[in-house]
Amino acid sequence: MSDRAIGVFDSGVGGLTVLKEMLRLLPEEELVYLGDTARVPYGTKSSATVLRYAMEAAAFFEAIPVKMLVVACNTASAVALKELQSRFDFPVVGVIEPGARKAVRVTKNRKVGVIGTEGTVKSGAYRMAIETFDPDVEVLSVPAPLFVPLAEEGWTEHPVTTMVAREYLEPLLEEGVDTLVLGCTHYPLLKPAISSIVGEGVTLVDSAEETALMVRSLLEKNTLLTKKIPVKPRFYVTDVSDRFRYVGGNFLGLPLHDVLQIDLEERPFFES
Amino acid sequence: MSDRAIGVFDSGVGGLTVLKEMLRLLPEEELVYLGDTARVPYGTKSSATVLRYAMEAAAFFEAIPVKMLVVACNTASAVALKELQSRFDFPVVGVIEPGARKAVRVTKNRKVGVIGTEGTVKSGAYRMAIETFDPDVEVLSVPAPLFVPLAEEGWTEHPVTTMVAREYLEPLLEEGVDTLVLGCTHYPLLKPAISSIVGEGVTLVDSAEETALMVRSLLEKNTLLTKKIPVKPRFYVTDVSDRFRYVGGNFLGLPLHDVLQIDLEERPFFES
Repeated sequence: MSDRAIGVFDSGVGGLTVLKEMLRLLPEEELVYLGDTARVPYGTKSSATVLRYAMEAAAFFEAIPVKMLVVACNTASAVALKELQSRFDFPVVGVIEPGARKAVRVTKNRKVGVIGTEGTVKSGAYRMAIETFDPDVEVLSVPAPLFVPLAEEGWTEHPVTTMVAREYLEPLLEEGVDTLVLGCTHYPLLKPAISSIVGEGVTLVDSAEETALMVRSLLEKNTLLTKKIPVKPRFYVTDVSDRFRYVGGNFLGLPLHDVLQIDLEERPFFES
Repeated sequence: MSDRAIGVFDSGVGGLTVLKEMLRLLPEEELVYLGDTARVPYGTKSSATVLRYAMEAAAFFEAIPVKMLVVACNTASAVALKELQSRFDFPVVGVIEPGARKAVRVTKNRKVGVIGTEGTVKSGAYRMAIETFDPDVEVLSVPAPLFVPLAEEGWTEHPVTTMVAREYLEPLLEEGVDTLVLGCTHYPLLKPAISSIVGEGVTLVDSAEETALMVRSLLEKNTLLTKKIPVKPRFYVTDVSDRFRYVGGNFLGLPLHDVLQIDLEERPFFES
């Protein structure tokens, strides 16, 4: 069991920021990444549709099989985590709880801002998770939908991105938040532009490292750490395009080889 | 046969700009609109995936059945039109040829710029169509991917949109184009920002009206104009969300009621 792979699932390339931290903190583990690039983005879609997509993705990982699944997409974590945990036998870890815990730990004035997709903000998942850890923390959430295409276009330090960041973040600054949760796996790429607006007084919280730490501690607790010889991560997508390779390479900071395409709408899962 | 509906297909809401012109020019016809909102956008996906989605959509219209299908999505027209025409029995009309014909008619210096999604620009479909009408016209194409989310966010006259427009359009202006094809159904919403950059010396070509004219002339030529009492258009989506209603309402300039959800991944097609 402990020698099985760990699945990492995202709507597209964003989850590679989580995979990157897992590669750093868990170099012995075999990681299998799935990006649902044929149906990306999730953040503007209804929760019913995102739930269906997440269920199909988890079924793919069940067929591999994996010893644990990391839902590295904030929208899917916000909308589908509980259903995935109740439906599948392997542990399923999302990115919301780790990010929320870290935000509660770092805030001093107990005013936390959260930016995310429309779907994530609407779900209220960060607010609920933060209030579970500390009911006295005030949570202010705003959707920041244009950050996703800006990150995907690679306009990470473009003046346009700074202007968009000002528009989204000024209301949070006016409320005096001292902590800002980057509640979408695309957003860490825009840290330079976001920092230039919020300044040094606001701590940016990115779930990637925190999630990898949580995965490691869960593996330890359940004696699921592998004893195998390390193997390279495997990458699956539902739409294989040059785009995944070049955008994904930027996200991961490594070249992406051997990306295989699968169809989540068909069973059994064949590589096409 | 002539009393059957006409299908209008798009990846999401953008095709409503085409539907709007059809409602104006063909008020007697019954129109059925399908937006594949569960898998939008198409413009950043591979041509194989877009082709598969377009085939599934056309199969839905075959089941209705329709007397004609309008592919109101530039990316799907660019990638899938020929295959749809050869596979289905009803006539299939795209938006590329009408837009290309109009561009050739209005250009004076025979330098035409085209902006579109990555998929549309990569396909070379506008270049080929324009060169078919007039091989002496020089075609300069650039992808303008951020225009889609900006239009969907409703930032149609926002300073950010003007800045993005400058970035995309300046290379075309330097080349001296006198005509600019808005090669994506989202772009007509950004006409104010685009016009402010290109100025009065550049004519903007939007395929919507030209496509509706072509549909009317095809119906006339094939004696397919209806003699029924007019009925309201019907709207189907693959992901029913408030987003389609409010963004779509902006596109159409009319409130959107009675939007039904269908699943293109399952046969037969049930309304869910």
